[in-house]
Amino acid sequence: MADKIFRVNMTDLSTSIEEVPENWAGHGGRGLTSNIVAAEVPPTCHALGPKNKLIFAPGLLSGTPASNSGRISAGAKSPLTGTIKESNSGGTSAQRLAKMGCKALIIEGQPQDDSWYSLSLTPEGVTITKEEELIGKGNFAVIEAVEKRFTDKIGVLSIGQAGEMQMSGANISVKDPDSHIRSLGRGGLGAVMGSKKIKFIALDAQDGKVEIADTEAFKAANKVFTKALVDHPVSQGLGQYGTAVLVNIINEAGGLPTKNFTTGQFEGHEQISGETMHDLIVERGGKPKHGCHAGCVIQCSQVFNDAKGKYKTSGIEYESIWGMGADCTIDDLDKIAEMDSIMDDIGIDTIETAVAFGVAMEAGVLNFGDADEMTRILKEEIATGTPLGRIIGNGAGNVGRTYGVTRVPVVKNQAIPAYDPRSIKGIGITYATSTQGADHTMGYTIATEILGVGGTADPLSKEGMVELSRNLQIATAAIDSTGMCVFIAFAALDDATCLPALIDLLNARFGISLTADDVSNLGMSILKTERAFNEAAGFTNLDDRLPEFFSEEPVAPHNVVWDFTGEEIDSFWNF
Amino acid sequence: MADKIFRVNMTDLSTSIEEVPENWAGHGGRGLTSNIVAAEVPPTCHALGPKNKLIFAPGLLSGTPASNSGRISAGAKSPLTGTIKESNSGGTSAQRLAKMGCKALIIEGQPQDDSWYSLSLTPEGVTITKEEELIGKGNFAVIEAVEKRFTDKIGVLSIGQAGEMQMSGANISVKDPDSHIRSLGRGGLGAVMGSKKIKFIALDAQDGKVEIADTEAFKAANKVFTKALVDHPVSQGLGQYGTAVLVNIINEAGGLPTKNFTTGQFEGHEQISGETMHDLIVERGGKPKHGCHAGCVIQCSQVFNDAKGKYKTSGIEYESIWGMGADCTIDDLDKIAEMDSIMDDIGIDTIETAVAFGVAMEAGVLNFGDADEMTRILKEEIATGTPLGRIIGNGAGNVGRTYGVTRVPVVKNQAIPAYDPRSIKGIGITYATSTQGADHTMGYTIATEILGVGGTADPLSKEGMVELSRNLQIATAAIDSTGMCVFIAFAALDDATCLPALIDLLNARFGISLTADDVSNLGMSILKTERAFNEAAGFTNLDDRLPEFFSEEPVAPHNVVWDFTGEEIDSFWNF
Repeated sequence: MADKIFRVNMTDLSTSIEEVPENWAGHGGRGLTSNIVAAEVPPTCHALGPKNKLIFAPGLLSGTPASNSGRISAGAKSPLTGTIKESNSGGTSAQRLAKMGCKALIIEGQPQDDSWYSLSLTPEGVTITKEEELIGKGNFAVIEAVEKRFTDKIGVLSIGQAGEMQMSGANISVKDPDSHIRSLGRGGLGAVMGSKKIKFIALDAQDGKVEIADTEAFKAANKVFTKALVDHPVSQGLGQYGTAVLVNIINEAGGLPTKNFTTGQFEGHEQISGETMHDLIVERGGKPKHGCHAGCVIQCSQVFNDAKGKYKTSGIEYESIWGMGADCTIDDLDKIAEMDSIMDDIGIDTIETAVAFGVAMEAGVLNFGDADEMTRILKEEIATGTPLGRIIGNGAGNVGRTYGVTRVPVVKNQAIPAYDPRSIKGIGITYATSTQGADHTMGYTIATEILGVGGTADPLSKEGMVELSRNLQIATAAIDSTGMCVFIAFAALDDATCLPALIDLLNARFGISLTADDVSNLGMSILKTERAFNEAAGFTNLDDRLPEFFSEEPVAPHNVVWDFTGEEIDSFWNF
Repeated sequence: MADKIFRVNMTDLSTSIEEVPENWAGHGGRGLTSNIVAAEVPPTCHALGPKNKLIFAPGLLSGTPASNSGRISAGAKSPLTGTIKESNSGGTSAQRLAKMGCKALIIEGQPQDDSWYSLSLTPEGVTITKEEELIGKGNFAVIEAVEKRFTDKIGVLSIGQAGEMQMSGANISVKDPDSHIRSLGRGGLGAVMGSKKIKFIALDAQDGKVEIADTEAFKAANKVFTKALVDHPVSQGLGQYGTAVLVNIINEAGGLPTKNFTTGQFEGHEQISGETMHDLIVERGGKPKHGCHAGCVIQCSQVFNDAKGKYKTSGIEYESIWGMGADCTIDDLDKIAEMDSIMDDIGIDTIETAVAFGVAMEAGVLNFGDADEMTRILKEEIATGTPLGRIIGNGAGNVGRTYGVTRVPVVKNQAIPAYDPRSIKGIGITYATSTQGADHTMGYTIATEILGVGGTADPLSKEGMVELSRNLQIATAAIDSTGMCVFIAFAALDDATCLPALIDLLNARFGISLTADDVSNLGMSILKTERAFNEAAGFTNLDDRLPEFFSEEPVAPHNVVWDFTGEEIDSFWNF
């Protein structure tokens, strides 16, 4: 059975199943969502209006037994940045979509009245149903209710209150194998789903089968690929301590943005480190090691229990811990875990929201370090859409504009995450040039600058950083199209067997004969497609800049500023 | 005595008096503020940071006996639009600055601590004084207190609470001859003054004398000029009914944006018309005719008393009445006058704020027509800086983003004023192409489209509208440099003696020999300077567009949409 495009029009509530146009056939994940957005969404349209489209696409290898291939991509024009946007996540949705033969789900239009809806997908197509019961509810309640209505094996994509209220910090939740939550986090895609008036999407629980052209070759390639992943020391570190292993490392490097980016080291770093979290998890009977999707062999996720041993949250990432922790100067993992869980329930990006709180603290709305007030604002203001809740729920840039703050760490209005670009310079090039606003995952130069993966680079020197970011952004765009987790990059950069094995997997899956050059060309073509969309939306090279204060305020302990010239940054696009 | 540049550095609290550089010598008012901003402000700087500068400049003829020459220009990078910004106003400041030999006051830098200051200017220079008593106070209290400290003849430029809180809807108040308030209204210049921590600027009450090179020629030219002004029927209409004479006219034309721009006629138009206001003013012993500055012969302002005959507000303009009236569907002039007075006191732009309320009403924050709730929000929320107050105080675009509204009437984030561009198409070209965001005063095509001044043009037809807007924007940039009120344009367009007389005034003042071509070249050069600043700040032709909904929602009663192509709009700049 050839994969199909599932299309839903929310203006007239019609659905269709379409053949895949030839020029999309070689695309999956981010490559596919970005190409569809570029082809079908007018770049200058209002992101919350009927002309925007929300696309979900599993990766090219999703649904197969290939290790770590269970990532789903969502794409649209972002209401946060105004750029094209792709966000990807683990969970069970990529595999369910792939197994039902859905290459992409395209949601377009907008209901003419105030009704809310849900979608349910089976291999036969999409059913649109009016929804009342779950409106106003958080994601945990939604997942529980949807499982009751269907089966506990159902796949779920949903929005919380933030998405309903179209806050541009709103994310889309993806049910994980334990019925917990992973997130399509960045860029406000939950607001786009809310603008389409879709509360949740249920994905058929009956597993179909993804066809593999050459099963033997596939199996052999997967063995090599898996070995490369599990053997890499960074994979092992991630499995042991989660991404929070980075807290101490980045603090040591002087690049842990603290107190709304006023300094690069956090006094309380030990209390919120991966090592501390690991011990706490073990002590309380949680799971220090856990996969966000079936088939993951790295297992950087974890299940975090509270002091009484009761489940609190899972998949609590370095960037979330950093944002609520160092950036808001909170050194209490239990409070951070509590907020992480609330943000999952409301359905709001932890990075955007934590940075927004940091800016609000700078504005004097609340005090730095006041976790109780943050928690109250999350529960009583953001979840209910009070004015303050909306100010913060719309992200760091919105808080900055609303309170007249000049120190607002955003690029293209998206919050800068957990690595200070003054003291870890390569990542600043990624923030500046990414087609999606500030996003470390778009070209994770930390790998080389800090972790010594794929060579080494002095994080305090500009030398080679543009090229490093360029190479990683190109590779990442390709990886994001396969359904693979970006953490396969560590092995791919260091182990000569990894990338060829990944290409063998693609070739065996589709009966084709891609080369490494093809993969690199795919990555370049995706970046150029995304950039062309942004240019047609009005973006110029002047949007590829970090905020002024990074060039003017030296950050301790290295006392360095962001010192790339515009010309140097713009050379990123010389390919 | 040659005019000088007065410069104040708020970072180190230093002041200086400087010679006027040769290339600024021929400039005044807007031409001078825009040239100084273009020369000294980095286009990509944060508008509320230390690199922005706030410039005040009287016009070239300000301080002379020339009729209607008392306008002051203020310029900066706008925190609302991110573009260059010039806003001008009547009052007594232009004449005081000119008479003390101050060609421009440049305020740069930013205090390093939380202190507030005031400035006082005399011919000898600027004194910076710490200010505590008036912080948190509204403009009326400030003017009263400053008059007590100095004399009641003192000139005052001040900000209210909105400017202190750096809301991007904040304006700068200019004391008028009756110690009431005129406003440098648009673009958030009050926030820039707030960011410099200057609560007020006192301008020496001792009148110096502006030198006139040829007093006889000046006197003769002024006689011709004045006659042209007072003879024009539009001048006379403005004198009789104020600018609110337009309420019925624009409603009749189907271009009175009503209920957040959902229709082009307002049922309650009679109740808020200039004619009704005139009768009410006369009945209550107010002044239906009043000048905003000494020497005005048009007298479109008025003094509006409440039902008990007590002073309520003055200079209540058509655009303010429209914004609070039709756009928010409030048909009660007393309530509108009350809100107008509160906005003057808080120091916030009536157009931006009224349109922001309209968007908030569309978002369901309050009901359309609820003047009492609007009044409460102004007094209890905006004046005190609550979250809701800040959301609205930062303008229509900010309300739209914060509440996820798609119908937000702004261009370059500045609220579209009182003329619907779908049914009065020429003004839409001005909104789209203006270097300052949506602003009717930048090229008032209404003159020709609706009032038949300077010829006629069918407001429902696109024909000739780009050229009309271009000609008027060029002429306006020049007029805004002279210190003349833009309402001299009616006479200038229709009376062949008017423009030559204005040129004679300039020539007699400076002993030069400008021609009409020189004036037109001045206008073009100003527009190009402003546009170059915007381009260097990251603006492109795609920012010269109206919001999507104008192209999609036909507006009653003509049921027409905004139908200019991007190419047609961009042809504006072919000069």
